[in-house]
Amino acid sequence: MKEKWFYESLFASVKLGLKVRKTVVSEKSVYQKIDILDTYQFGRVLVLDGIVQTTERDEFIYHEMLSHLPLLSHPHPERVLIIGGGDGGILREVLKHPVKEVFLVEIDEKVIELSKTYLSAICRSSFDDRRAKIIIDDGGNFIKDYKGKFDVAIIDSSDPIGPAKVLFSPKFYRDSFNALSHSDGIFTQQTGSPFLQGKELPYAYKTLRKVFPFVVTFLAAVPTYVGGLFSFVFASKGIDPLKIHLSEIEKRYRKLKLETRYYNPEIHFASFALPTYIKGKVESKRNA
Amino acid sequence: MKEKWFYESLFASVKLGLKVRKTVVSEKSVYQKIDILDTYQFGRVLVLDGIVQTTERDEFIYHEMLSHLPLLSHPHPERVLIIGGGDGGILREVLKHPVKEVFLVEIDEKVIELSKTYLSAICRSSFDDRRAKIIIDDGGNFIKDYKGKFDVAIIDSSDPIGPAKVLFSPKFYRDSFNALSHSDGIFTQQTGSPFLQGKELPYAYKTLRKVFPFVVTFLAAVPTYVGGLFSFVFASKGIDPLKIHLSEIEKRYRKLKLETRYYNPEIHFASFALPTYIKGKVESKRNA
Repeated sequence: MKEKWFYESLFASVKLGLKVRKTVVSEKSVYQKIDILDTYQFGRVLVLDGIVQTTERDEFIYHEMLSHLPLLSHPHPERVLIIGGGDGGILREVLKHPVKEVFLVEIDEKVIELSKTYLSAICRSSFDDRRAKIIIDDGGNFIKDYKGKFDVAIIDSSDPIGPAKVLFSPKFYRDSFNALSHSDGIFTQQTGSPFLQGKELPYAYKTLRKVFPFVVTFLAAVPTYVGGLFSFVFASKGIDPLKIHLSEIEKRYRKLKLETRYYNPEIHFASFALPTYIKGKVESKRNA
Repeated sequence: MKEKWFYESLFASVKLGLKVRKTVVSEKSVYQKIDILDTYQFGRVLVLDGIVQTTERDEFIYHEMLSHLPLLSHPHPERVLIIGGGDGGILREVLKHPVKEVFLVEIDEKVIELSKTYLSAICRSSFDDRRAKIIIDDGGNFIKDYKGKFDVAIIDSSDPIGPAKVLFSPKFYRDSFNALSHSDGIFTQQTGSPFLQGKELPYAYKTLRKVFPFVVTFLAAVPTYVGGLFSFVFASKGIDPLKIHLSEIEKRYRKLKLETRYYNPEIHFASFALPTYIKGKVESKRNA
């Protein structure tokens, strides 16, 4: 029988190829084409418009880093906002913290519906948690009505092409600043591969610096995101993440008894160390 | 015109695809098939038996990390041994240090010959440096005749299949120990992707621990090595790399005026921090 392969269409000259056992589901929503594939190496894979979003085997890396790093940097996060994240992976990790409520704002209801049915290994029972409020809306539209409400905002969107473009705009960053709690609000966002998507991180970093007093970059390596290191921005109103002591992060981590597979307190700090080629794209210190 | 793509054949269920402008050279040596391709994203790429070894655009990551990390961990490296490394990239970086002699032992003369001709962006003039002694031999055969000679040994081989298999054996590790200078010799080796080549790092780590008093793992993310983080082992006779202070590494780094694009003193230490899934495969501390 002929082998079936999926080749990602994100980049013009580099491709990730995954050997496919079968197509689990393939649908078109109002916003995008949604495929869930069963692959040999990475288990089930969520693909939006031809681009890999997450996989059963390596999702823990992205989801742990984009949730525990900001949440453990905050002394007592109670109200958390997730924009995007319709697969439920970030929600699952956030709910491991003693939070009071988590708003998940996903533009595409179909992503949540298909994830609940076919990616239960990722979302688990997180959508049923009574602390989770699921809202179907454009994140940019949602956030503008909130003032000082959220301790931590996590932007788990696709790349800034298509429906997620608005989530990388100056207006969205200002609205996010206003929606965060007054003294210690934290904002985090995925900003792509600095090696292959060279403009995404510097643009987000530069734009956020005009809005937030503290902006730093952190990194993680996700096997199915080609390009070596993958980047994230961390912006805050008053918390300087580089001034928190390792022992404090260790204390908060131990208290929660998290069983993480990528994140740990040493990785928390190591992820702020930038290779020179990435350092040149941002300044990894607070605003002058 | 039809697009031309190269797909790496290292893994059964995951492929890296690179869009090719043209094949620069394609030859068969006694040991392997050697292709040098001109690609759109990564410039010229050296491929041995279908597996990407290095590329013009991202070679700096692997070469800087596998040379400067061990060399700057040593107080005064004078004699360095490179096994493999026929593309000259490691040699180029080692020669930036005030070393007295560097032996490069490559099994396949053809790799050196083609690299000199077609990968001069990588080897530069390093093969012509009067401190470089180029030896065509099997690394395992070469090393057994030396006692206490080298301050640093760098094993820049292909994966432990084919000609490089011997470089991951207990006998080779014992011979390497003996070939290193008595109190402060350092041994480093690439050990593949812990995510996709799950057995390589744990095997090398466990085997080295029976020979060297200090063994640690360090990591770097190389875009053309699929699988997220790429691993290396660092073994030494007396130097505990985790006990050297950041300020000491900074001092040694500044003194050399190195213009590195990945490596820097913060990355030096951050690269020893292991994600939990890798920590579980090794114990990142010295022998008990």
